[in-house]
Amino acid sequence: MNALPTPPDIVRCAYMDLVVTDLAASRAFYVDVLGLVVTEESETEVYLRTFEEFIHHNLVLRQGPVAAVAALAFRVRTPEDVDRAQAYYEALGCRTERRASGFVRGVGDSVRVEDPLGFPYEFFYEVDHVERLAWRYDLHNPGALVRLDHFNQVTPDVPRGLAYLEALGFRVTEDIEDSDGIVYAAWLRRKDTVHDTALTGGNGPRVHHIAFATHEKHNIIHICDKLGALRLSDRIERGPGRHGVSNAFYLYLLDPDGHRVEIYTQDYYTGDPDNPVVKWDVHDNQRRDWWGNPVVPSWYTEASLVLDLDGNVKAVEVREEPTELAVTVGADGFSYTREGDAEKGFKLGNTL
Amino acid sequence: MNALPTPPDIVRCAYMDLVVTDLAASRAFYVDVLGLVVTEESETEVYLRTFEEFIHHNLVLRQGPVAAVAALAFRVRTPEDVDRAQAYYEALGCRTERRASGFVRGVGDSVRVEDPLGFPYEFFYEVDHVERLAWRYDLHNPGALVRLDHFNQVTPDVPRGLAYLEALGFRVTEDIEDSDGIVYAAWLRRKDTVHDTALTGGNGPRVHHIAFATHEKHNIIHICDKLGALRLSDRIERGPGRHGVSNAFYLYLLDPDGHRVEIYTQDYYTGDPDNPVVKWDVHDNQRRDWWGNPVVPSWYTEASLVLDLDGNVKAVEVREEPTELAVTVGADGFSYTREGDAEKGFKLGNTL
Amino acid sequence: MNALPTPPDIVRCAYMDLVVTDLAASRAFYVDVLGLVVTEESETEVYLRTFEEFIHHNLVLRQGPVAAVAALAFRVRTPEDVDRAQAYYEALGCRTERRASGFVRGVGDSVRVEDPLGFPYEFFYEVDHVERLAWRYDLHNPGALVRLDHFNQVTPDVPRGLAYLEALGFRVTEDIEDSDGIVYAAWLRRKDTVHDTALTGGNGPRVHHIAFATHEKHNIIHICDKLGALRLSDRIERGPGRHGVSNAFYLYLLDPDGHRVEIYTQDYYTGDPDNPVVKWDVHDNQRRDWWGNPVVPSWYTEASLVLDLDGNVKAVEVREEPTELAVTVGADGFSYTREGDAEKGFKLGNTL
Amino acid sequence: MNALPTPPDIVRCAYMDLVVTDLAASRAFYVDVLGLVVTEESETEVYLRTFEEFIHHNLVLRQGPVAAVAALAFRVRTPEDVDRAQAYYEALGCRTERRASGFVRGVGDSVRVEDPLGFPYEFFYEVDHVERLAWRYDLHNPGALVRLDHFNQVTPDVPRGLAYLEALGFRVTEDIEDSDGIVYAAWLRRKDTVHDTALTGGNGPRVHHIAFATHEKHNIIHICDKLGALRLSDRIERGPGRHGVSNAFYLYLLDPDGHRVEIYTQDYYTGDPDNPVVKWDVHDNQRRDWWGNPVVPSWYTEASLVLDLDGNVKAVEVREEPTELAVTVGADGFSYTREGDAEKGFKLGNTL
Repeated sequence: MNALPTPPDIVRCAYMDLVVTDLAASRAFYVDVLGLVVTEESETEVYLRTFEEFIHHNLVLRQGPVAAVAALAFRVRTPEDVDRAQAYYEALGCRTERRASGFVRGVGDSVRVEDPLGFPYEFFYEVDHVERLAWRYDLHNPGALVRLDHFNQVTPDVPRGLAYLEALGFRVTEDIEDSDGIVYAAWLRRKDTVHDTALTGGNGPRVHHIAFATHEKHNIIHICDKLGALRLSDRIERGPGRHGVSNAFYLYLLDPDGHRVEIYTQDYYTGDPDNPVVKWDVHDNQRRDWWGNPVVPSWYTEASLVLDLDGNVKAVEVREEPTELAVTVGADGFSYTREGDAEKGFKLGNTL
Repeated sequence: MNALPTPPDIVRCAYMDLVVTDLAASRAFYVDVLGLVVTEESETEVYLRTFEEFIHHNLVLRQGPVAAVAALAFRVRTPEDVDRAQAYYEALGCRTERRASGFVRGVGDSVRVEDPLGFPYEFFYEVDHVERLAWRYDLHNPGALVRLDHFNQVTPDVPRGLAYLEALGFRVTEDIEDSDGIVYAAWLRRKDTVHDTALTGGNGPRVHHIAFATHEKHNIIHICDKLGALRLSDRIERGPGRHGVSNAFYLYLLDPDGHRVEIYTQDYYTGDPDNPVVKWDVHDNQRRDWWGNPVVPSWYTEASLVLDLDGNVKAVEVREEPTELAVTVGADGFSYTREGDAEKGFKLGNTL
Repeated sequence: MNALPTPPDIVRCAYMDLVVTDLAASRAFYVDVLGLVVTEESETEVYLRTFEEFIHHNLVLRQGPVAAVAALAFRVRTPEDVDRAQAYYEALGCRTERRASGFVRGVGDSVRVEDPLGFPYEFFYEVDHVERLAWRYDLHNPGALVRLDHFNQVTPDVPRGLAYLEALGFRVTEDIEDSDGIVYAAWLRRKDTVHDTALTGGNGPRVHHIAFATHEKHNIIHICDKLGALRLSDRIERGPGRHGVSNAFYLYLLDPDGHRVEIYTQDYYTGDPDNPVVKWDVHDNQRRDWWGNPVVPSWYTEASLVLDLDGNVKAVEVREEPTELAVTVGADGFSYTREGDAEKGFKLGNTL
Repeated sequence: MNALPTPPDIVRCAYMDLVVTDLAASRAFYVDVLGLVVTEESETEVYLRTFEEFIHHNLVLRQGPVAAVAALAFRVRTPEDVDRAQAYYEALGCRTERRASGFVRGVGDSVRVEDPLGFPYEFFYEVDHVERLAWRYDLHNPGALVRLDHFNQVTPDVPRGLAYLEALGFRVTEDIEDSDGIVYAAWLRRKDTVHDTALTGGNGPRVHHIAFATHEKHNIIHICDKLGALRLSDRIERGPGRHGVSNAFYLYLLDPDGHRVEIYTQDYYTGDPDNPVVKWDVHDNQRRDWWGNPVVPSWYTEASLVLDLDGNVKAVEVREEPTELAVTVGADGFSYTREGDAEKGFKLGNTL
């Protein structure tokens, strides 16, 4: 990697450009249920932000024929970092597209790339400022989403992905490994939290989830309670619970297209240059849920497709190494449908 | 029932007399992990109370050969109500035992009975007052248990149990039924909460759990977090979650003998004479968990044995009607290992 | 009192009938800001309830010429208890008025009385049931008021008021006294909480406040945050804080007419017949605020007028004994404008 | 400033070196009451850290003859940044002292300086790593302090201080001004929060406070409740409340020497290069407390002395411009003893 140009100085994950197949249904989910703030919208797009955000949006819902992720967008420190991003990816041999007026509303000069892992990354500095609604408690709902926290990506070869992202300037904060040296997942940061994105080992490129932060745990519980009241509890895929990795309190939801959304709160400060990396053993059943509650298989197997720069679905490559789901084996040597099943007394009697 | 004498005026559920097989292990669980307050203790007994309690104890741990419940004790309004209790159960043809100096420390004149359902009930008025530690925030832990909330009993014939307890003065607040008129469970109160005890349909007499209340939901979450930190997450059987029935936030733990303990917070006021009874359909998958999360089968099948007045284990009678576990059937006609499995995509491939 | 008839069996405080001078302004405060639920309304009345209430209302806002309290209404256990209430107050020589169809919408057969302390009390059993919105989390706001908790009344002679209310069936849970035997305030209950009403020594009859309960402390904090966002922070008179008396977390607000509303959470169970009475010394500066924060004088001096059965303002009698405000004296013998001033170093009349 | 060398790359505020006059009393306050974690201690020093910290300490308590701040220490990004710090301050004409083995235990090569405002700043990179107790919920107390959040310094000339700190690399996030251009206070950051330090206009150099973060608001409330239980409520100087500036929930305590400690939670992300600066008008009575609650004068007037590199107390220079306390004037032109008094109806010198 020595010969590569200087990478862009990435500030943080900033927004996701998300293709949904029924915009009204998706708007109902993200606005009416989750309470994200509408910055602006049209017949085909809805621009949403969190309550403490001051840039134009953290999520774009875009009507389209196939549910997929069109871009994972990162903010860079200066306008020149957009140039650096373009040069960097071109040096990597990746396809790039530069648009001086941006790919979406509210964002200016940007570059989108098909990165070495097959993901559509965007880098931008110019962006419209909007009102930071942090003090507008009259508008907050009981489950107020206050920040975009991170993305999570599925890729077959995690070490390869790590090498690429570390060269790009990301720093690993935690990972999941086994004693054979297989890396199942890793968390990487630019801002001072546990991650701006994570790599989960699996068939990819696919996007595992987008995560929004709340202030407190009761905010997340309210979201569950509200989904119950709306008889939408089947949108709850997993949780709420406490992560081992990241130490955050979490909840996973599925939007109307099956795109996964995490609600997340209270990880820890990671901004020091020698921030200790936390390594978890894949056989530690508290790594994914600190309370040992089972992870549903869908959480390991399902994820969102991604688009290339032409808007076509990117082909998915199969992971050759085992996934966490596959290596979940009980103490008695049986394999189980879900983590924690051994402890709870459920033996696998069938194939998933 | 017309000819029965006046029943005792029961104030509330007051304490459980619990036989444990390893007192040191049980003390570690209830005191060191859950943080109950020790009022007094000996080589063979530990008397525990919650932070807002002013009577001597809410739980007695008693060393014994078989894990079981020795008594479910209720406080009555006056000393004469102990007489009324004795006369009432004698009129019911039940065995009773009266002890002027009580069956346990801190409690005076009491009567224990083998009730019509086979449970060892105790009624007392006289009790030592101890310091109510409500204001002693210097002693509270992050998961502070502040009140005994209720008991839950397993019995084969719920309508029969209801008739008995309603005659005794309990009022139903909620139940679970089906369209065929089968009653799967019911909640009954004396104090102004959803229950002092509940009846769960199953093989019995057995005790399903004892429940302690916290002030807030984060207190319950802390208990999970602490169990994780102590690598005791396998003590978490179910939850945390939001109940449909009772609307409370809950967690179920298993003590070292497998006795089940619920941690519970925020049900609603029920003290009006015409408090509306809430009826849940057994096929409503949000009745047991408002968020639709699966109930583990052990929660339906496992419970604590009870003792008769001689200290012998009471024989367990089999429920003839189906249990909730058995009627958990997915929309596609398959039965599933756990509620919610249909939604989550897990089909039952084996016998439990 | 021996010759008095049996008093009514009072279940709980149920609602307040409140005269406001600008119904639109009051509706904005109670509905738009505090989020109470509108059961029904007309040009001149708004009927409001809390989220866990199943009776028609907990508060009536009624347009009128003078801001005042028209009635403090209590629910009784049976229809016959309305008769008992009428007979009881007539035996006390009090004026009563019986209306078979109620004084307000949603309530049936009721009696209103001018009680011995000059307060307009109402007793009713018949009431319309409405939906208990406990499970409707989709409707809850971040500061959701879930129950009516209590009233608080100002009266010149607290011991006289206590004798009257204890004969009526109330039980004292806490009080504030001094070593000279002066009683400054007392808390009385019917339901299993610290109070259904309280007596505060001062010029009266006047109503000090009505109190609504939330589930958790953060709900109360949100109400403050929202008032700040709406630039209505001057509606916050006192708090939030932790009471010494009752151990509850509290906040006092002033509605557009200056009627005081408390938001309250987490006192303790008091339902046992021998529930210990907690006595506070008036010189204990943690009795009113456990954290020792000063009580603003207006909280001691201001209160709402009450109406007689003709709708005329009841004359206010002056308390002869000192009030808590007057006895707030610093350790150095100076008197201070506010409690806590001695500790904080503010002497009355002092220039900074 | 053009000719100045490159400033050090400061990562964050890291620890305070605090001289206390009664080490046992201070240890009782910070360890037994506030629950900070002891990393190590001796007869004359106690090294304390927060639960999520991985460096050796966030606070040093050091026995000494005069209560004062010996150093405000910042972590820098690389070992070379210590050199840069030294060169930078020498170029500023400041006295510096370099110690290869550090000034305190656990910290290596460091430089301390007497900065242009008279404060003792320290810069270090080398530091011992200790266990990050984030996951050790078994050790957490109900008011767990999880991070050092910031310092706050008192200086007479805020614009001068701002120019110095901005040149050093800090970025302003919020400030308090008036229409005459007087700056009363400003908040400056390196990490992604509202501040690593703040400048408060007043007689200085003095240190206003050190602030520790909790996860949630109830943690802060517990600290108040515990102080009440320990009858130490006079340690509460101000709060709890919601700041206008920073939007954080706060509490101010005074340690046994009168050093001020803030407990703080839930400000917002500030890491973007164009993070909007929030400017507050000094006459906005919600700027310091979003709920409009009065600020006690001591909070404006009292602060900790600082030491020079010889350990002598630094002389305090008087601010010539008015302070916030002095400009707190009611709408009627009267001045008041405390902010908010105008709204609450308390005029200075008035008899109640």
